[in-house]
Amino acid sequence: MSRVAIVGAGMSRFGARPEGAKELFAEAFARAASTVDRNFEARLVQEAYVGSMSFGGSQIGNPASLWVEHVGLRGVPARRVENACASSGFALRDAYLAVRSGEIDVALVGGVEKMNDLPPIHQRYWLGASGDTPWERLAGLTFSGVYALLASRHMHEFGTKPESLAAVAVKNHAHGARNENAQFQKAITMEQALSSPFVAEPLRLFDCCSTTDGAAVVLVASEAKAREFTDTPVWIEGAGAATDHIAVHDRPSLTRLDATVAASREAYRRAGVRPQELDLAEVHDCFTIAEILATEDLGLCAKGQGGSFALEKRGDYGGDLVVNPSGGLKAKGHPLGATGAAQAVEAFLQLRGRAGKRQVPDAETALCHNVGGSGATCAVHVLGV
Amino acid sequence: MSRVAIVGAGMSRFGARPEGAKELFAEAFARAASTVDRNFEARLVQEAYVGSMSFGGSQIGNPASLWVEHVGLRGVPARRVENACASSGFALRDAYLAVRSGEIDVALVGGVEKMNDLPPIHQRYWLGASGDTPWERLAGLTFSGVYALLASRHMHEFGTKPESLAAVAVKNHAHGARNENAQFQKAITMEQALSSPFVAEPLRLFDCCSTTDGAAVVLVASEAKAREFTDTPVWIEGAGAATDHIAVHDRPSLTRLDATVAASREAYRRAGVRPQELDLAEVHDCFTIAEILATEDLGLCAKGQGGSFALEKRGDYGGDLVVNPSGGLKAKGHPLGATGAAQAVEAFLQLRGRAGKRQVPDAETALCHNVGGSGATCAVHVLGV
Repeated sequence: MSRVAIVGAGMSRFGARPEGAKELFAEAFARAASTVDRNFEARLVQEAYVGSMSFGGSQIGNPASLWVEHVGLRGVPARRVENACASSGFALRDAYLAVRSGEIDVALVGGVEKMNDLPPIHQRYWLGASGDTPWERLAGLTFSGVYALLASRHMHEFGTKPESLAAVAVKNHAHGARNENAQFQKAITMEQALSSPFVAEPLRLFDCCSTTDGAAVVLVASEAKAREFTDTPVWIEGAGAATDHIAVHDRPSLTRLDATVAASREAYRRAGVRPQELDLAEVHDCFTIAEILATEDLGLCAKGQGGSFALEKRGDYGGDLVVNPSGGLKAKGHPLGATGAAQAVEAFLQLRGRAGKRQVPDAETALCHNVGGSGATCAVHVLGV
Repeated sequence: MSRVAIVGAGMSRFGARPEGAKELFAEAFARAASTVDRNFEARLVQEAYVGSMSFGGSQIGNPASLWVEHVGLRGVPARRVENACASSGFALRDAYLAVRSGEIDVALVGGVEKMNDLPPIHQRYWLGASGDTPWERLAGLTFSGVYALLASRHMHEFGTKPESLAAVAVKNHAHGARNENAQFQKAITMEQALSSPFVAEPLRLFDCCSTTDGAAVVLVASEAKAREFTDTPVWIEGAGAATDHIAVHDRPSLTRLDATVAASREAYRRAGVRPQELDLAEVHDCFTIAEILATEDLGLCAKGQGGSFALEKRGDYGGDLVVNPSGGLKAKGHPLGATGAAQAVEAFLQLRGRAGKRQVPDAETALCHNVGGSGATCAVHVLGV
């Protein structure tokens, strides 16, 4: 089994973008290719995995072929990987396994989403569709509503306060302000977060990620091939993934995402890394409560302590590790199927020391945590240099 | 790199099914599990790849988690693979690569489609969406129309007659009449085929596959694990895949699907098998012209000879090899994303000598050929015992 490296990674600017999906994909691909130190040519790509959730709604089937054709990769085997918001986290997993097989030397991982091309009713539909349909969506529970239930239960069980939720938003917006590709590059205050209108109580506007267009591309290679491209590959040290019941009422706990627990344990085990050794983690903060749950379920703090972890700034620069230096889904934006790949882009830049104003000092070990639905699927990768 | 074996395979009855997608998936899974000779339990599955094309239209996102949960596989990492009608051919490819990596010992490959749950306008949309959208679908070209262009050009270049198209339909309906899971289990005559109404000239009703619900499941395992399950594994000897321009006007030829040529060459090369050594081939006959093109592009006969190959019954029992013993997409039915997995089910049954009334005598080597769009994607597998 070959070791697997990330040798290049790039993302489009996230936000409300007038361009089409294939243009965003091309923007991300060009940026990813430009980060490979040497010898890279598009024709070296042998396999492509592109995550996208809502693309069926955009009236294009079979889009992976279209996207790879658009960047000059006609012929390269390509497929769309769909796992709700974890689509490109699983695309990364599949590329990792393909390279590890020894049959593939260079693979492309992509993520593309054009949420603003969907009419608002469809935006709600696609988000709700990643939860349970008969018991949640069709009963009128929005996706914000699902996470509001998790937040309410966390408050009930552990005394978590709205200030902890707000602290996550404030941190991630501060990080996003240093990310030139983020949708929101503006810091916010605790007061702003705590006085923003309710979307689904207890979640307020600043507790929720937004509607985002964007794409991200990651280039992975076998160890032998990686050495041709760079002297400083970023290794995928371990990968793990899991699923869970889709409907939250089926799960044993509302304050623990078992898929995150299982996927991260597997990734840590394969990497031989403990949570305490991480320098940074890109976690799936589609809502602020999701980051609080993630810090607990990933073992960054004890169960029930995610609220104080946030309040005490243990996930900020100078803390235990930096959680979501990119700004996270909250501030960088959350183009559904592109998020997992974008997390890997941030980890790559950080581990290569190329993260500019938001560089985590001496970053050597990073984790990427990508969730689909309200925890129905999860892919975790541990990266290192 | 471990060898990869198919140790179990089963499909639901294909047709217009009142059940939901997860019930069809469960039917296929139970049948697949029942074909494993010994020691199989659901909890041994470590990874799942489920192909489905139109599922977004059914208002469920993230369905792979739902389906694996429904058959008792909560926790197993699962994703939906979407590549139009080649979705589960690529799911098989991805499972093959995952097992080959050494990280996964047992993987599930599935395909699920409920076309009859989509309103007719959406059925047309989903089929058209697998071709090119701006230049084909939105310009009014139906998917039957795309293949009618290919048929017309084949007739122009090679003198192919309507009788050759009809011969494919007659053969596949005769095969389907012996398949208890086929949608159409009724033989037809040349006269019926040649007098059926035009759908898109020169393609008549019996030149076209139908609207089908169905599911199929294939269980793959590493060599070591396969030996625990059976004394007679079916090996995936070689896999290949490719993409092409989506729009037919971009391609160098209308009478050759380059993705099929490239994917099959790769699969033959890896398997060390020549086309002449095949005992049977399940090929992607979404239209009769597609089978004629496939027999040429897969190297079963020379370019331009696909018409006479059909007329001379070289693809029937007693001929060069048996093409589509299952009845093919034409008679067995074509539930889009389930077709690739169903082709592997047929090859598995044939190579295990369990194909009953349609058994190909002494079958030792088989090929599965799954196409997405009008040739935009293709996955080919060579199987052997």
